[in-house]
Amino acid sequence: MSKHLVGVAGANSDRLPDIVALIGDPGGIGPEVCVKAIASGRLHAVCNPFLLGSVDVVRQVATSIGVPHRVELVTDAHSAVSDPSVINVIDPGGYDFSQFAIGVPTANAGRAVVRWIREGEALGRSGLIDGFVLGPIDSQSLKLDGEILDIDELQPKGTFMFRIGGNLRVVPLTEHIPLRAVVDTVKKDRILELILLLNSNLKRWGIPHPRLGVAGLNPHAMFEEDKQEVLPAVEAARALGLDVSGPIAPDAVFRMALEGKYDAVVTMYHDQGQIAVKTAAFVGACTIYMGLPFVLMNVPHGTAFDIAGKGVARSESIESAYMTAAALAQGKGFLEIS
Amino acid sequence: MSKHLVGVAGANSDRLPDIVALIGDPGGIGPEVCVKAIASGRLHAVCNPFLLGSVDVVRQVATSIGVPHRVELVTDAHSAVSDPSVINVIDPGGYDFSQFAIGVPTANAGRAVVRWIREGEALGRSGLIDGFVLGPIDSQSLKLDGEILDIDELQPKGTFMFRIGGNLRVVPLTEHIPLRAVVDTVKKDRILELILLLNSNLKRWGIPHPRLGVAGLNPHAMFEEDKQEVLPAVEAARALGLDVSGPIAPDAVFRMALEGKYDAVVTMYHDQGQIAVKTAAFVGACTIYMGLPFVLMNVPHGTAFDIAGKGVARSESIESAYMTAAALAQGKGFLEIS
Repeated sequence: MSKHLVGVAGANSDRLPDIVALIGDPGGIGPEVCVKAIASGRLHAVCNPFLLGSVDVVRQVATSIGVPHRVELVTDAHSAVSDPSVINVIDPGGYDFSQFAIGVPTANAGRAVVRWIREGEALGRSGLIDGFVLGPIDSQSLKLDGEILDIDELQPKGTFMFRIGGNLRVVPLTEHIPLRAVVDTVKKDRILELILLLNSNLKRWGIPHPRLGVAGLNPHAMFEEDKQEVLPAVEAARALGLDVSGPIAPDAVFRMALEGKYDAVVTMYHDQGQIAVKTAAFVGACTIYMGLPFVLMNVPHGTAFDIAGKGVARSESIESAYMTAAALAQGKGFLEIS
Repeated sequence: MSKHLVGVAGANSDRLPDIVALIGDPGGIGPEVCVKAIASGRLHAVCNPFLLGSVDVVRQVATSIGVPHRVELVTDAHSAVSDPSVINVIDPGGYDFSQFAIGVPTANAGRAVVRWIREGEALGRSGLIDGFVLGPIDSQSLKLDGEILDIDELQPKGTFMFRIGGNLRVVPLTEHIPLRAVVDTVKKDRILELILLLNSNLKRWGIPHPRLGVAGLNPHAMFEEDKQEVLPAVEAARALGLDVSGPIAPDAVFRMALEGKYDAVVTMYHDQGQIAVKTAAFVGACTIYMGLPFVLMNVPHGTAFDIAGKGVARSESIESAYMTAAALAQGKGFLEIS
């Protein structure tokens, strides 16, 4: 079925990875930045780039911003010809193009986005594509459609959100839960599971000997859970031969990682790592849904309805996401941040 | 008794403030960096600088690093003559100079440090000095002495720790308590009290119209305590005419402050603000014990026993602390960070 396996070192090192970007909410800047990214010509050296979404929307947007590229419908990424003068689009249907509306959330867009994300995820899980980049979607469109009530529901089961902001990489035990509930999720087995998953993913992505830092839960990592839960998890991982340190004072570990001491940091709750990433980085952080056999990630900006359709949106973020997905899918590691 | 009142605008604007630095643990680099700071000649333009500690230690250190300044014992800061060729020392006694030891923690040092801090605090509370800068002390020396078991006990009752790291200024509701205990300390009345105290201190320090950001407790400030406790506190402060915003998503508020939107951020627990400050700043953050009638602050480095007595310690941090204390005592605001 699949012509290759992601992560088998050297197996297809001469083949460029197939990276697909969801065009995002058709009413936002997603389709525009996606078209600009492919039309830039900067992506074809590192991957075979595709779009996923409504081919009619892509055609309309390409015309409106004056991109001369042909827009073609493809059904199978692996067999498609990668031609820098062509924008290849996988269109699973689901969007009523007669109701195309720019600059506003719509149920039409919400419905299509959910369908497209599921299709892209299925392609990735089947090994038919190597990476799937989520262009910006809109929570209001999702609510208008009503199938998905909370954007968090789109996170694939069993995955952890690995965030990259500049040279800082963090992954938390939990996401959007109240701080009151956090403490009881900080358990040795869960921490160890995340450490092992992180270690294996970093190796597959191109870091042969990952150096991991694990944050404590409490100030200066000096209270009960730090000693009873975090420390035993770190010790168990070390006993398995992993290069893991912790529990480290939460207010110290991120600076240490920024200075190159750790390849990634395991955090005990959402804000612990997110405060560090979003405070340290001037540009947005992208997120990888870790725990899948392909690279699933998003771009760090929203639909920007206010400037959608005006031709002024910039495509650097999605180009960077394409390149990161390509590098990780090939086991070449993270992009250098200058 | 006191010849002036701190914070009475214009009352003594032509008089330089009396700023006293604790020499810190005699066995560490504190005495050396203190002597270097005063000998640099950079402080006398903004304050009358003094040291507090063992005059014998100061003399010995000054000699050993080749500083030609006279070291003089003074009893009253206000009446002392500020002479750039003289290092003025207030010595409350309590240190056995015959046991002077460098590079190691000692009970002798711990005992003296506790006595000196109390003396400096009393001078400040009596209005006899305008600022007190704590040079680096050592928790091990304190333990060897035994009167103080935890360095946290030295925080004056009723104060909050206001931290400055680059252009980021934060103050938390609580310090070193377990995360498990944090949630129940996030109460409307306590938050409002801290907002009001912060606002009045910022005004006294030289920010006429403070703009305050208040972090929520939970991810994206979207859970119970954010709505039931933080929001009502912010609303009550706004009803009193303060420029306060919140609850703001904890992972967004510090970047907003760094970009100039807020003069300071009220945080719901220790690590929330400390992760931001210590991740964003390449140099250490200094801390002001907020809630006192004078400026009490510390320097952001330790005793560095390993290099103590070698003459290589750098005095920029303590010079910066002297200058910050002088500016705040005179209501001139925070130092510009380039």
